[in-house]
Amino acid sequence: MRILLNNVTAITVADRGVLKDVSITIDSGKISKIGRDLGDLKLKDYDKVIDGKGKTVIPGLVNAHTHAAMVLFPGYDDDLPLRRWLEERIWPAERKLTAEDVYWASMLAMIEMMKSGITTFADMYFFMDDVARAVEESGMRALLAQGIMDRKLDHEAEKHLDKATKLVEHWEGKAGGRVKTAFAPHSCYLCGEDVLKRTVELVKKYDTRLHIHLSETREEVEEIRTTKQASPVQFLDRLGLFEVPTLAAHCVHLSAEDINILADKESTVSVAHCPKSNMKLGSGVAPIPKLLEAGVNVALGTDGAASNDTLSILEEARYTAHAQGVRREKIATMELLKMATVNGAKALGMERQVGTIEEGKKADLVILDLDTAYLVHSPDPIDALVQLAQPQDIKMVIINGRVVMEDGKVLTIDEDEVKSKVKQLSKKYRED
Amino acid sequence: MRILLNNVTAITVADRGVLKDVSITIDSGKISKIGRDLGDLKLKDYDKVIDGKGKTVIPGLVNAHTHAAMVLFPGYDDDLPLRRWLEERIWPAERKLTAEDVYWASMLAMIEMMKSGITTFADMYFFMDDVARAVEESGMRALLAQGIMDRKLDHEAEKHLDKATKLVEHWEGKAGGRVKTAFAPHSCYLCGEDVLKRTVELVKKYDTRLHIHLSETREEVEEIRTTKQASPVQFLDRLGLFEVPTLAAHCVHLSAEDINILADKESTVSVAHCPKSNMKLGSGVAPIPKLLEAGVNVALGTDGAASNDTLSILEEARYTAHAQGVRREKIATMELLKMATVNGAKALGMERQVGTIEEGKKADLVILDLDTAYLVHSPDPIDALVQLAQPQDIKMVIINGRVVMEDGKVLTIDEDEVKSKVKQLSKKYRED
Repeated sequence: MRILLNNVTAITVADRGVLKDVSITIDSGKISKIGRDLGDLKLKDYDKVIDGKGKTVIPGLVNAHTHAAMVLFPGYDDDLPLRRWLEERIWPAERKLTAEDVYWASMLAMIEMMKSGITTFADMYFFMDDVARAVEESGMRALLAQGIMDRKLDHEAEKHLDKATKLVEHWEGKAGGRVKTAFAPHSCYLCGEDVLKRTVELVKKYDTRLHIHLSETREEVEEIRTTKQASPVQFLDRLGLFEVPTLAAHCVHLSAEDINILADKESTVSVAHCPKSNMKLGSGVAPIPKLLEAGVNVALGTDGAASNDTLSILEEARYTAHAQGVRREKIATMELLKMATVNGAKALGMERQVGTIEEGKKADLVILDLDTAYLVHSPDPIDALVQLAQPQDIKMVIINGRVVMEDGKVLTIDEDEVKSKVKQLSKKYRED
Repeated sequence: MRILLNNVTAITVADRGVLKDVSITIDSGKISKIGRDLGDLKLKDYDKVIDGKGKTVIPGLVNAHTHAAMVLFPGYDDDLPLRRWLEERIWPAERKLTAEDVYWASMLAMIEMMKSGITTFADMYFFMDDVARAVEESGMRALLAQGIMDRKLDHEAEKHLDKATKLVEHWEGKAGGRVKTAFAPHSCYLCGEDVLKRTVELVKKYDTRLHIHLSETREEVEEIRTTKQASPVQFLDRLGLFEVPTLAAHCVHLSAEDINILADKESTVSVAHCPKSNMKLGSGVAPIPKLLEAGVNVALGTDGAASNDTLSILEEARYTAHAQGVRREKIATMELLKMATVNGAKALGMERQVGTIEEGKKADLVILDLDTAYLVHSPDPIDALVQLAQPQDIKMVIINGRVVMEDGKVLTIDEDEVKSKVKQLSKKYRED
């Protein structure tokens, strides 16, 4: 499949900055050329020619932390802080989960993600074989990991470690390279030292990555301080987690020393910031300006829909800015856009493949019309994108050189089938 | 014009709650009948029959505090707290304003508002004759007020009071009753005691209302405490402002005593909460659960687009919930919906005309399709609406019995003309 995108404004999120009126060619899933003067192009050499006039193209957005199938649990945020929310609401619901539920719910989540311009996501959940199958079919790119918990329930951790290992062995690099895998111990409060250490060994053995929740709530920090005489960041550092590539979700409650540790390990550790989930669950506001200033790679995540409602990385970018507004700290729109794209790619270990618009990278692209009534009053394409763009402004999504969404319709998934399946399957979660 | 809306789910925001599969008839701009068994209706008696199957209808949303024409000043939130933002960014820009600028910019703001389901707004700005003219043409409903400032600039306050009085005399009840008027002294830090007292007398004389900014920032509270030995709320109470119907925007920084005063005056005073603007300008998070608990009527406002980016009351409802999440306080979705509708109507003195779906009220209605992929996972129509609905889910907007927006197109305004005019006129504000 060869695609030619003509006369478009490209926000490259790379050294070339914003390019006006350029053409981009896509060949075998990759961006082959970007330039104004692609003089000897012949239209007949292309399977698809897209008129980019008046449109803007950006790198596909990266959702660096989610639990896709949690679209099954709407409005489960209730009035509870995280730990009680998990114990009283989420875990009882999750005990009913089947492979079929997770497959169809992940499909629905991917429909939502593609419509909001997300092309890559990092998922940590259960029945991950079925999530991988759904990703293969949807055309999306993903870093998948079996959640590992250690609650002393029926050798739970052993089973999770086993499933996690099988997932890595079976799925790494599959679906034409779109599926990558990781190990995902839930957190230092739901995994013991032994399980965390064994996970690090597995990550080393398979040369892969680690995905974990970290310092999400004040209660977590207090608990680990009491039981381990260390902050969660110090504790994980001591266990060697930051020696391997680690994607740490949340990082809301950090001391100055914690920030120094994360900054020291910036070549291996990334933070997935989830501002909307943190607000909904009352977890707090993460010190993002301080992390950025210290040189930490900060990406954005939606977390699960049960603590978000929607799955949009542009929305997370806005919440990032506005949440800091409460403290009168400001983050530039370009910095927010990097968090939504290239920082996410780095956090998932995919920075050589995606995250920017550059020749040789995979063609994961989102084409928007930023010239709607909602947007006419913004003079700058990056401001318009980050502050104003609505889902209906997203006209096309391309992943790996394949058009997966066009004019509001996902082309790789039967939306009606997924909606009706999820409606039916989700009934049992509403009877509580 | 007689309209029949069939087989719709109606969220009435009134005693009848949520009605499934009902029909609603509209006659001479009003809701004439709501019911399941409107047996002897004849389709031929209606000029327009709308199939409501699978759709949801809600009362038109009320934007209780905005400065519509500020769509001319995008991204002007900068890094500044409110006072410096006004002095260094907004006022220099506003000195360039012409009547033509305000007319076209207000038109653009109304396009955005109608597309996001807003049918009524409270505007406080300059060149209000031209705003009124724009409202007349757009078909919207509005409470309009000339902003009154008292900065000792060239008898500014006298001129503003004179313009404000002429606006009330000329426009009250015009445009078929869609335009109502008020007096709008900017705030107790930009108006002296004398001007505030004279405004109260004018409000009494013309039997109208007052619209003012109140306790928006910590700096305002400190300044008034120093100069007047009172909180802003106490100061205005002392001057008699709360004896007349008053719409107080922001109310971010309130003492327990302030909240008691506002609660005592709940029959005359309403609060317009503007959470997104408060976050963007770093003003803080208003104590909304405490105000609601005390019995204060709290409505929602977008404030001007210069401190918001978008103009959506559903978005303000979400920000209201999430901003409180930072403090772990929760507001029910039904309460948020009331703030977006009936509380707004009360705040603008229009509760007998609009704000709910009831027989005899004006037909200000918003029809949504809540069954999109984004929304399928929510079991409750009020949760779906308040937490999830996106602009593209809004299919039709009716104001005063007239269809003003359908399938994303505003029918009363030439959108392309407005966009091109605003693009051209706004250039001079970008040269700074």
